[in-house]
Amino acid sequence: MAAPADVVSLAEKFERVRELWSPHAVAEFNGLQIKLVRVHGEFVWHKHDDTDEVFLVHRGTLRIETRGSDTVTLHAGDLFVVPAGIEHRPVAELECEILLIEPAGTPNTGEVATAAEVPLI
Amino acid sequence: MAAPADVVSLAEKFERVRELWSPHAVAEFNGLQIKLVRVHGEFVWHKHDDTDEVFLVHRGTLRIETRGSDTVTLHAGDLFVVPAGIEHRPVAELECEILLIEPAGTPNTGEVATAAEVPLI
Repeated sequence: MAAPADVVSLAEKFERVRELWSPHAVAEFNGLQIKLVRVHGEFVWHKHDDTDEVFLVHRGTLRIETRGSDTVTLHAGDLFVVPAGIEHRPVAELECEILLIEPAGTPNTGEVATAAEVPLI
Repeated sequence: MAAPADVVSLAEKFERVRELWSPHAVAEFNGLQIKLVRVHGEFVWHKHDDTDEVFLVHRGTLRIETRGSDTVTLHAGDLFVVPAGIEHRPVAELECEILLIEPAGTPNTGEVATAAEVPLI
């Protein structure tokens, strides 16, 4: 039975995230991580075969293109789930802060080579 | 392979949540649900033996008392994880909007009697 961790201020933690497309974990629960990512531009098309992926926009606007479905646009406070196996590509015309929820160790691009450890910040 | 669901606007969904302490699910992923709850006053002391519970404050201020640890205070944009097995009690002096992440079917109070189905709104 773990002791509770500290309160996480998303705004404060985002100040520590400077690199683009580099997920920083801020909390763990049930084997999943909540990660903060600063994004700008187009990411690569990719998919996660074994996990759904939650996107929540903290600041800015994010477009998510998905193969076989309409592109969606998320503004601050909007949430979207990309189901497992669905190819998708996040795109941000301007810099945007997003929160991801996915299992610890999930590769960034769906490729194992990008599944670096993501320590808590 | 499920098709993506719609974009969820947290602000719009909270407008549909009027009752207090009544979780409304707005998204599902990996067997978990993201639930919106409008709270005011003191909830009961309880624990969830089998799951961590994520609290994210959307609007207002939430205090979470935990047995054996310091009480924490969350403001809008603050996140806190109550580990499995930890007795806790959420308290809101003023009405507050919170987001919970926990497995689908998790009893509200940790007691099975409160594990009613929580359909998506």
